[in-house]
Amino acid sequence: MYREHIHIEAIVKNVSKYSLSGRLRIASILDTNDKGVSYIGQRVTISGWSRTVRKQCSDTLVFVVLNDGSTSRNIQVVVEQSASGFRDALKSSVGCSYRITGCIVKSPAKEQEVELLVSDSKEDEIKVLGFCDPSKYPLAKKHHSKEFLREIPHLRPRTQFFSSVTRIRNTLSIAIHDYFQYLGFYYIQTPIITSADCEGAGEMFQVTTLLPHSNIISDIPTKKTGNLSTKINPESTDNHDKLDNMIDYNRDFFEVPTYLTVSGQLNVENFSCSMSDVYTFGPTFRAENSHTGRHLAEFWMIEPEMAFADLLDDMNLGEGLLKYCVEAVLKNNEVDLQYLDANIEKGLINRLKQVVSEEFARISYTEAIEMLKPYNNKFTVPVEWGMDLGSEHEKYITDVLLKKPCILYNYPKDIKAFYMKQNDDGLTVAAMDILVPKIGEVIGGSQREDDIEKLKSAIIEKGMELEPYWWYNELRLYGSVPHAGFGLGFERLVMMVTGIDNVRDVIPFPRYPGHCTF
Amino acid sequence: MYREHIHIEAIVKNVSKYSLSGRLRIASILDTNDKGVSYIGQRVTISGWSRTVRKQCSDTLVFVVLNDGSTSRNIQVVVEQSASGFRDALKSSVGCSYRITGCIVKSPAKEQEVELLVSDSKEDEIKVLGFCDPSKYPLAKKHHSKEFLREIPHLRPRTQFFSSVTRIRNTLSIAIHDYFQYLGFYYIQTPIITSADCEGAGEMFQVTTLLPHSNIISDIPTKKTGNLSTKINPESTDNHDKLDNMIDYNRDFFEVPTYLTVSGQLNVENFSCSMSDVYTFGPTFRAENSHTGRHLAEFWMIEPEMAFADLLDDMNLGEGLLKYCVEAVLKNNEVDLQYLDANIEKGLINRLKQVVSEEFARISYTEAIEMLKPYNNKFTVPVEWGMDLGSEHEKYITDVLLKKPCILYNYPKDIKAFYMKQNDDGLTVAAMDILVPKIGEVIGGSQREDDIEKLKSAIIEKGMELEPYWWYNELRLYGSVPHAGFGLGFERLVMMVTGIDNVRDVIPFPRYPGHCTF
Repeated sequence: MYREHIHIEAIVKNVSKYSLSGRLRIASILDTNDKGVSYIGQRVTISGWSRTVRKQCSDTLVFVVLNDGSTSRNIQVVVEQSASGFRDALKSSVGCSYRITGCIVKSPAKEQEVELLVSDSKEDEIKVLGFCDPSKYPLAKKHHSKEFLREIPHLRPRTQFFSSVTRIRNTLSIAIHDYFQYLGFYYIQTPIITSADCEGAGEMFQVTTLLPHSNIISDIPTKKTGNLSTKINPESTDNHDKLDNMIDYNRDFFEVPTYLTVSGQLNVENFSCSMSDVYTFGPTFRAENSHTGRHLAEFWMIEPEMAFADLLDDMNLGEGLLKYCVEAVLKNNEVDLQYLDANIEKGLINRLKQVVSEEFARISYTEAIEMLKPYNNKFTVPVEWGMDLGSEHEKYITDVLLKKPCILYNYPKDIKAFYMKQNDDGLTVAAMDILVPKIGEVIGGSQREDDIEKLKSAIIEKGMELEPYWWYNELRLYGSVPHAGFGLGFERLVMMVTGIDNVRDVIPFPRYPGHCTF
Repeated sequence: MYREHIHIEAIVKNVSKYSLSGRLRIASILDTNDKGVSYIGQRVTISGWSRTVRKQCSDTLVFVVLNDGSTSRNIQVVVEQSASGFRDALKSSVGCSYRITGCIVKSPAKEQEVELLVSDSKEDEIKVLGFCDPSKYPLAKKHHSKEFLREIPHLRPRTQFFSSVTRIRNTLSIAIHDYFQYLGFYYIQTPIITSADCEGAGEMFQVTTLLPHSNIISDIPTKKTGNLSTKINPESTDNHDKLDNMIDYNRDFFEVPTYLTVSGQLNVENFSCSMSDVYTFGPTFRAENSHTGRHLAEFWMIEPEMAFADLLDDMNLGEGLLKYCVEAVLKNNEVDLQYLDANIEKGLINRLKQVVSEEFARISYTEAIEMLKPYNNKFTVPVEWGMDLGSEHEKYITDVLLKKPCILYNYPKDIKAFYMKQNDDGLTVAAMDILVPKIGEVIGGSQREDDIEKLKSAIIEKGMELEPYWWYNELRLYGSVPHAGFGLGFERLVMMVTGIDNVRDVIPFPRYPGHCTF
C-alpha cells in the first residue's frame, strides 16, 4: 500500500539583516557560522532590552547583556566610562531598553566570540530608551515557574523560554504555508462564526448580541417582546406565557443561534469540490470543561482537503507535512532547539531528526489490535476489535513496539465520524491517525464519503438530522469526487517540536476554563 | 520627511506541476508562456469539473470544457467515439467530474493553442467520477447575479469569478507572510476570545456558554441560582430579588464576560515589546448593524507592530506592503486579472501597475485641509481643521487633486484613539492613514504613546478606565520603547486588487446582519 512519500527541500528563511528602521538584528551577528567574528572591527547600531546589567572596576565599566528577540542568544555590551551615555547606562538595570552604537570586538570571555564595545569614539553611544524599576519588575529575578509566567502573558515573551517558543511557532506557521503552496494548495479562510451547530453542540461557544449590558435577564429579548415573525400563534394565552420566557433568536445579530466553529473541514470541502486542493489554517474552539494541560478552549488548526485523492494520498500528505515542518525548525531554529534540548527535553534534537529521516510505519487498525493483544495484561483497558484506542495503547505502539511514528488506518466505522468513506468490508472507514512517539496523535483524517446515498445513511445512523447538511450533501450531487483531508492541531505540533508538555505554554494567550487574560 | 521606501522583489510561486495524487494541473499546461504548445504530443492525466459539454457530428464526438480550479482558463477535451468511456461522456453534462487521460494536440480553434484528445489509444480514457443533473444544478445556466451566488457559497467557487477571487486571496495571504518574514517579523496568533471589552463594547459579539439549549431565559444561571462567590450580601431580601434577575458570569466558561476581538493590536504590542518586530494576521469581528456592501461582521486583519520605530518607519512599512502585495498578484495572477479587467473594472491592471510604480504622496492632515478648502463648495460637508475627513474628501485628494495613493499623517488628537503618540504641538498625534484612488482608506496606523504618564492622561481624557489597561500600561513601565504599527483590512485589500465593490463577494463565507450561511 506504500507509495513514495513526498519530500521537499525545507527552505531556510532569507531574512534581511537589518530591521526596516535600520538597526542590525542581534541574530545577524551571533547566529552566523562564525558567531560574529566576521563583524570584528565593524561599527553597528543595535537595540534591545537588558537581561542583566553589571557594574565593574569601581563603576568604570558597565556590562549590559542585551536581547532584541531575534535570537535566544544575548550580546554582551561593554560600556566604557568615557562613552556617551555612560551615566544613564550606570543607572540602568534589568528590563531597560536601549539603542546602542559601538564596535564589535573579540570577547575575552569564553562564552562568546564577540562583544559590543561602546567607547569614547564620537560615533559611539548608549541611549537608555526606557528605564525599569527592578524592585517592581516581575522578571527581575532569573528563574520563574511556568505557572507564574502564564499570569503575565504580556511579559512572558521576554524570557528565553517563551521567545524560543514564539520563534518556533513562527517557523512552523510559515513552513505549513510553504508546504501547501508548493503542492499547489490554496489557502481558504473558513468562517469562525457558524450557524452549523449540529456536531457536538454541547461543546460549542455561542456567539450572540442578545445579552444586555444591564446583566438583567429580563432585558433579554423574548419571543413575546420580540418581533412577530415567530410561527407560534401569539393569540393563545398558554403560548403567551411560553413566549414570554423564550429567547427570541430572531433578534440576535444573525437572526439564528450562532456558534464558534469547531472545525473548518466541512466548509473547506466546499472549496475542494471546485478548487481541488485547498487548506484552512485558523482558530477553532471547544467549550470543553477540561483542566488538563492538553486542551485549550481556543487553538489553531490546519485542515487540508484534496480532490481526486484517496486515503493513501492523505497519509502521504500528512507524513510529508510533519517531516517538512520538523525539518524547517531544525534548519531555522538551531539555537532555540539547543536551549530546549538542554532545559525542556533531553534528546529533543535527536528525536526530531528521527522524525525526518524515518519512514513512518503504516498499519491498519485491525493489525494494531492483533499487535497489542499479547500485551493486554499491561493495559488498564485491554484491547478488543471495535474499541477506540486509548493513549496507553497508542503509546505502546509508537514508543515500545515500533519506536517510530506510525500511521494507523481503516478504523471501525462505529467509532468514527459520519463523513468518512465507508470501506467495502462494511465494517471500517477509510480513516487514518498519525501517532508520534512521546506525543501521541497529532493528525486525524480520512477519505470522505462521496456517495450521496451512503452519506445520507451514515447521517441517519448516527442519529443526526439530514436537513442542516443540505449543502454538504449537494457536493455529492453535483459532480462528486473522491476527496480526502485531515486536521492537525497547531499547538499539538508545537508541543511535538519543542518537547513542552503543557499546551498553555505554547500559545501566546492561552484560553481555558476560568482563564481569559486580556 | 521621505526616506527611500523599501522594495522587495516579489516572489513568483514555485508550484509543483503535479498534484500529490499525480494529476497534471491544467494551469501547468495552459498558464505557460506558449500556452501549452510544448506539451503537444504528450500523454497526460487531468481531472476537473465540466463547465460545458457539447455533442457534435451526430454524437460521434463529445467536447468537454474542463476546469480544475488551478487557473481560470479551461481546457477543451475532445472525446472520440472509439475512446474508452465515450458512452458515459456522452451522457455527461455541465457540472460533472472526470478523470481523463489523453494526448495534448494542436487545437484547430482560435481561442486556444492546444486541446486534449481522448482517442482509441489503449492508454486513453475518460472516466466520469460524478454525474450532475443539469435540471437541478444551480449553475447550469451561464450567467448568475452576484446576489444569487452569495446564496450558494458552497458552489460559488465553481464560477470563473469566484475562483479568480479565491486564487488572488491566496496570493495576497502568502505575499503578506513573505513580506513580513523577509523583514524579520514574527507571526503572532493573537487571541480571538477576549475579556477586554473596553473599546467599543457596543459593537462586540459576546462569547458565552450560559444560554440554555431549552431557549428558556429562566434557565440562565443567575447570581441567586449561581454559586456564592459573588460579593453582594445574599442575606438582604432586596439583594435577593436583584440577584435572582442578574446573569451570573461566574458560571460562564471563563468566569467573566468575554467577547470576540475587534483588533489584535494591543495584544501584539505585548510581543513587540520583547520580540521587536511582529505581526498578527487573523479574524476580527464587529457586531455593527451595517447593511452596506462595505462592512462584514467577520473579516481578516493584518496588524504589524515594530519596536524601535517611528511614524516614518510605519509609513514605509505600509507603502512597501501594499506595493509588494500588488506586485505579487500582477506576477502570479495574470490570467485572473485579465478576467477581472474585462468583466469587473476596466483598466484594473493599469491601476495596479500605477500603485506599484508611483511613490505615494505624503501630506499632513493640516496640509490636506488647506488643499481641500478652496473646493469646499463641492462637498456635502465643508472641511475645517479638527474634523474627521469623510470619504468625499479623501476621494477628492486621491482621485482628483493628487491622482495617486496618498499617506495622510499627524491627525488631530481629539478624533484619534488613546494609544496614539502625542506630537509636541499638543494638538496632533503621530497617526497615518493610507488612501488609495477609487478605494479610499486601506491602512490606518500610528506610532504608539510610549510615555506612561501621557498614556494614562489620554485614557482618562477619553473617559475610559485605567484599571483594565494595567498590562498595556506596564509595557511603558518596564523598558518602554518607541514603537509603531497599523491595521490593514484583508478584504479591503482584496477589493483594492480585484476592483470588486461589494465586500461580500471577496470572502468565502460572508457574515453580515441576518446572514450566517452554514
